Amino acid sequence: MRPNVNLIEYALPDIGAGKLKVHGRTTGELDPLTLFWTGSGIELNAKGSELWIEVEAGYDTYEPWISILIDGEPVSRQMVAAGRHWACVFRGMNASVAKNVRIVKDTQAMSGDPGCFLQIRAAKFDGEFLPVAEKPYRIEFIGDSITSGEGAIGAVGEEDWIPMWFSALRNYTALTAEALNAEYRVISQSGWGVLTSWDNNPRANVPDYYEQVCGLLQGERNEALGAFRPNDFAAWQPDAVVVNLGTNDGGAFHSPAWTDEATGATHKQRLNEDGTYHEEDLAAFEKAAENFLAKLRRCNGKAHIVWAYGMLGAPMMPAIYRAVDAYAKRTGDRKVSVFQLPNMTEETVGARAHPGAAAHERAARELAGYIRPLLTGSGR
Amino acid sequence: MRPNVNLIEYALPDIGAGKLKVHGRTTGELDPLTLFWTGSGIELNAKGSELWIEVEAGYDTYEPWISILIDGEPVSRQMVAAGRHWACVFRGMNASVAKNVRIVKDTQAMSGDPGCFLQIRAAKFDGEFLPVAEKPYRIEFIGDSITSGEGAIGAVGEEDWIPMWFSALRNYTALTAEALNAEYRVISQSGWGVLTSWDNNPRANVPDYYEQVCGLLQGERNEALGAFRPNDFAAWQPDAVVVNLGTNDGGAFHSPAWTDEATGATHKQRLNEDGTYHEEDLAAFEKAAENFLAKLRRCNGKAHIVWAYGMLGAPMMPAIYRAVDAYAKRTGDRKVSVFQLPNMTEETVGARAHPGAAAHERAARELAGYIRPLLTGSGR
Amino acid sequence: MRPNVNLIEYALPDIGAGKLKVHGRTTGELDPLTLFWTGSGIELNAKGSELWIEVEAGYDTYEPWISILIDGEPVSRQMVAAGRHWACVFRGMNASVAKNVRIVKDTQAMSGDPGCFLQIRAAKFDGEFLPVAEKPYRIEFIGDSITSGEGAIGAVGEEDWIPMWFSALRNYTALTAEALNAEYRVISQSGWGVLTSWDNNPRANVPDYYEQVCGLLQGERNEALGAFRPNDFAAWQPDAVVVNLGTNDGGAFHSPAWTDEATGATHKQRLNEDGTYHEEDLAAFEKAAENFLAKLRRCNGKAHIVWAYGMLGAPMMPAIYRAVDAYAKRTGDRKVSVFQLPNMTEETVGARAHPGAAAHERAARELAGYIRPLLTGSGR
Amino acid sequence: MRPNVNLIEYALPDIGAGKLKVHGRTTGELDPLTLFWTGSGIELNAKGSELWIEVEAGYDTYEPWISILIDGEPVSRQMVAAGRHWACVFRGMNASVAKNVRIVKDTQAMSGDPGCFLQIRAAKFDGEFLPVAEKPYRIEFIGDSITSGEGAIGAVGEEDWIPMWFSALRNYTALTAEALNAEYRVISQSGWGVLTSWDNNPRANVPDYYEQVCGLLQGERNEALGAFRPNDFAAWQPDAVVVNLGTNDGGAFHSPAWTDEATGATHKQRLNEDGTYHEEDLAAFEKAAENFLAKLRRCNGKAHIVWAYGMLGAPMMPAIYRAVDAYAKRTGDRKVSVFQLPNMTEETVGARAHPGAAAHERAARELAGYIRPLLTGSGR
Repeated sequence: MRPNVNLIEYALPDIGAGKLKVHGRTTGELDPLTLFWTGSGIELNAKGSELWIEVEAGYDTYEPWISILIDGEPVSRQMVAAGRHWACVFRGMNASVAKNVRIVKDTQAMSGDPGCFLQIRAAKFDGEFLPVAEKPYRIEFIGDSITSGEGAIGAVGEEDWIPMWFSALRNYTALTAEALNAEYRVISQSGWGVLTSWDNNPRANVPDYYEQVCGLLQGERNEALGAFRPNDFAAWQPDAVVVNLGTNDGGAFHSPAWTDEATGATHKQRLNEDGTYHEEDLAAFEKAAENFLAKLRRCNGKAHIVWAYGMLGAPMMPAIYRAVDAYAKRTGDRKVSVFQLPNMTEETVGARAHPGAAAHERAARELAGYIRPLLTGSGR
Repeated sequence: MRPNVNLIEYALPDIGAGKLKVHGRTTGELDPLTLFWTGSGIELNAKGSELWIEVEAGYDTYEPWISILIDGEPVSRQMVAAGRHWACVFRGMNASVAKNVRIVKDTQAMSGDPGCFLQIRAAKFDGEFLPVAEKPYRIEFIGDSITSGEGAIGAVGEEDWIPMWFSALRNYTALTAEALNAEYRVISQSGWGVLTSWDNNPRANVPDYYEQVCGLLQGERNEALGAFRPNDFAAWQPDAVVVNLGTNDGGAFHSPAWTDEATGATHKQRLNEDGTYHEEDLAAFEKAAENFLAKLRRCNGKAHIVWAYGMLGAPMMPAIYRAVDAYAKRTGDRKVSVFQLPNMTEETVGARAHPGAAAHERAARELAGYIRPLLTGSGR
Repeated sequence: MRPNVNLIEYALPDIGAGKLKVHGRTTGELDPLTLFWTGSGIELNAKGSELWIEVEAGYDTYEPWISILIDGEPVSRQMVAAGRHWACVFRGMNASVAKNVRIVKDTQAMSGDPGCFLQIRAAKFDGEFLPVAEKPYRIEFIGDSITSGEGAIGAVGEEDWIPMWFSALRNYTALTAEALNAEYRVISQSGWGVLTSWDNNPRANVPDYYEQVCGLLQGERNEALGAFRPNDFAAWQPDAVVVNLGTNDGGAFHSPAWTDEATGATHKQRLNEDGTYHEEDLAAFEKAAENFLAKLRRCNGKAHIVWAYGMLGAPMMPAIYRAVDAYAKRTGDRKVSVFQLPNMTEETVGARAHPGAAAHERAARELAGYIRPLLTGSGR
Repeated sequence: MRPNVNLIEYALPDIGAGKLKVHGRTTGELDPLTLFWTGSGIELNAKGSELWIEVEAGYDTYEPWISILIDGEPVSRQMVAAGRHWACVFRGMNASVAKNVRIVKDTQAMSGDPGCFLQIRAAKFDGEFLPVAEKPYRIEFIGDSITSGEGAIGAVGEEDWIPMWFSALRNYTALTAEALNAEYRVISQSGWGVLTSWDNNPRANVPDYYEQVCGLLQGERNEALGAFRPNDFAAWQPDAVVVNLGTNDGGAFHSPAWTDEATGATHKQRLNEDGTYHEEDLAAFEKAAENFLAKLRRCNGKAHIVWAYGMLGAPMMPAIYRAVDAYAKRTGDRKVSVFQLPNMTEETVGARAHPGAAAHERAARELAGYIRPLLTGSGR
């Protein structure tokens, strides 16, 4: 191989203002850039013939995966093995044509692996970076395994809980944002809910950590990486916030009690004998949802808040409607609504009994149709 | 990361008879295994928790790309950078479940880059390799850029001639074989034809090199790797041979003459003033096609030979029919036929003005429907 | 034409018990059979070579349309002109094969045309009528123009309010019932709602007439035909009742007041200046919905009641959820729920700015998936 | 019903030049207009509120069926019973809007029923007929049962040979013409071929009757109706002629000999013991095809002639290619080519083991793509 002698190395901060677009909620630091969330990553307009990026990753259990898109089309998807290495993004291309490049984190933030991290450190390029235009809209998606794209790739029948089955691109979040020409961010965690996780852990709730960069992570490394810092909401205000939570809160009613190993305290969302949800526990969920709406509004002043739920059934829908109603009544906030997403079917199921790519496509089509008038101002 | 202390390294020959399935035409050597053709690779049934493979690649101009499939679903696709390195195939999986693993070469043999090579050297695994069952049918596909999957991945509008836009999986060959539950091999080269290449080079023809392992390559390294050895046809006899050539022979009529730099000799498939093909030159094409059929039959005694053509239009179809007719008449060979593949459209075009994934899917659906009765014996 | 001398005339009652299946809500009389509602009609298993039916129709303004299905496939659709005449259903068929025949009323009951009526009087047949098997499930659909299939046939852009654009078959009701192997009935009226019509007429509400055979009709002829008799609910108890109302109640807020010509009284669902629904008027809608649920339960003791709404947007959804909640809380009735149907889009719009056939197909697919577990007993 | 006192009766000739468009090959007579072929009919632009047409039909065995389209969308399809009667096309429409109306004959010319005829005699209208614009292209389709749309409507499994299963609209001819914005005519007959019918009747061949208006009919009535008159080719010159014949010629090889009842002479396209076609008989087919091409060119001076075949398999394709080749060689005619249509599949089969609507749609999509450049002049 004849090495390309024109490659120049750039630490990310040196790429230039407006020329390195960072996607997803991060600390703002670029040297290196730590990526936490599903769908986070970088975007460049690279006018040159050869481009490399330097990545670094680590993990105890769950390795990160990334996808590479050139001019909007996925061309590569790979596991990022532990260590630090250079990955070639493209080579041999026409040096006078600008290519839009996106490096996207396919895997979610891993609350269960304090050793897991992914960073982009630098780029090596023989051309010129051009400005990356801002999109007209911004959307934030908040959710659980569905929003993390769990099971959207891989064969039906796969059961292992491993990062390989997570996809940021075969994902209603990416597809909805693309349909609406919106920049987007994802805040998601498998198994988590509004009040508890599917297995009744009251700490495994998204709202408690919402105000931090990536508060649901654990451990010293993540602390050092800035995961627990307050998120700078003012720096990125979405036009719409989509909340896709409730599936695990619904599951909690059907799961055994959770015991706090430290204190011995237990928690359970109780199911009545006749199969209905225990009134107090359901009310606790509704209260948590109501409070989350208040928190979302506090953090996102102008956004339309859409509770979009249903891809794995919608048993919590009445409770969600009540919570949204109570919040809207209490506050007079009119920019909040509920939308039911189409349920997964036998034909659209993916791996791990989760929605497959086809289910995500269906959901994105309906959701984009609902959100579009909200963004363009011709809605409610 | 806690390293997996149970990983055992296997040179490919040590994996065990019937447990390492090699796909595609190779020399038969496994230490290491050199992959030449589109769609070539290895297949394993790996019952364990973590698997790595060691690859080695080199190139002057055109780098190889590989895809990884787990249980039949693509999960990874990556450029293989120059050098030797270990790639993790999967980790953290259930050690008592066998996973079907395929490593597939996405890029074609590169006649234009004598420095290009790809090898799989070894595997590292903490479990047990199980036998890989043979499929009931075998199909060999012979063709040009279409069969190499050029343009089947990447954005419409991409023009660079680079390996990144080649796909073995978004490819009518893989899709047809899958629909028919057949093992398959691909012999293909962009720009080449039956008689000449699109630009009238009479040496850029597939038939001349058909009897070698990968005779269309050049250079010492490839010679050392065994590319020019005679292919062992007896060891792998297909039930069907699909010939998708003619597109570049058609293009030659519309291209300028080609000059042999060494001798100064020129070659041109001439176009008459009224836009028809020059009678002698067309006859030369037909003769070459007829001779290729004879060669194919000599090498593949029992196969149904199907000339399947048309994904980029079918101007050579009448000539192809005449050639097949002449061959059948001369030899009495009744297991040869012609099939027209659906043309690419505005909606199904991919990158580099080549058929995109949707065009390949359409073609595979029609072709599989045509070939099925030939394989099951209920056809002609 | 050689007349078929084997044709025997049957008044409908003479066809035989279990051999003439009447679909839709009717008075029970068969001599003749008067059809009122969308999707009503007859079903026969006719083992013979030639079959005719005698129909009679009349109208001042709106003519009825019927469709004919043979073995489940539509083969004919025609306007039924005023008068009495024989229509050939099939001829020249194999006399020893039984054909399943359905004659279906495509048009809704016409509250705006007291002169409109459609009757089937007799059949002429040269074969044997065989028993028609009962389907395992029964579903009743209640709704407005969407449920009447308005706009599901005809070119996008058609604006005339005429019966020709109504379809019982290109209709989510028929498609959902088919997917679930259910017999079904339709109670629907364009422009009507739960509380008022789209134009604020408080009498144009479906609940007030629900307990009669076809109470929303007017005039002496309809009275004589038995339209105002109490419906015999005991004779046909559905497993599911689908209520698709609310669209016109939502429209009322945006329409001018309605004036009772007789009394001068006006009615308007008022819109606040800020675009929200007037609290009292919205509450009136919710109360009406709540009361309708109580009425539905009174009339249909075992049915799952599903409020399915959304094919023309879902602005009334929060109010519907509140109404269902209030009803369920008050009564402890657990077999009532809400389901959001996919909204029509630019691609799926039909005639008269109503959902086209594609929108109905999408809605039926989602609705059938939701209802299926309720019917099979594996739901809630 | 309040009769419409504004209806004025028009014999067809009185509708006005350029305002009554006749589709399909007819004698040119309008008083009345006799329709023979699949897809024939009339087209009007009717600006008024109510329109009726007077039809008359007769048959010994096979009744005609018609479809009605308003603004390009089918709204009605009905059997036309024997006798003369008025059928309402539309009523109650906006009198100031012009509606495009097409009455289309769904059934083929019935060579097996000399008593079968269909005529349109008059129209009754309360508005104004506006000119019907000519389309930019004209296409003639020649074929067999596939081109007659046999089996394109009705349930899979229907076996009766009756007119009900024939459709002019769910038919690749109508769909291809629509995609190309072309006016079209159909010359077709179930079971017939180029040389013989499927059952070896040498008189059941389309070419022998091609030059007459509808020469394949029989009997005095048809003679009186002008069916045997020479067709006026000069009056309607197509831009493309699509020949979809060969399926029945292929079937003949597998069918028993046919005996001429009158003379005792037999005819059989013989199959060799090894399953190949008898050389002489195949050559007879090729000669017949070659002669038909010459006749087509004689009658249609400027048309691109496309032999499009394959919807029920393509065993005759090599013979067709040879015939086209021989013709082109002999005459130098360059505006003739062959195109393979996609084969019917298990998923796309319709009634009577014939291509269903989905197969026709697939074929039309491919055929339109092939013909388009021929029409726009950017092809060969």
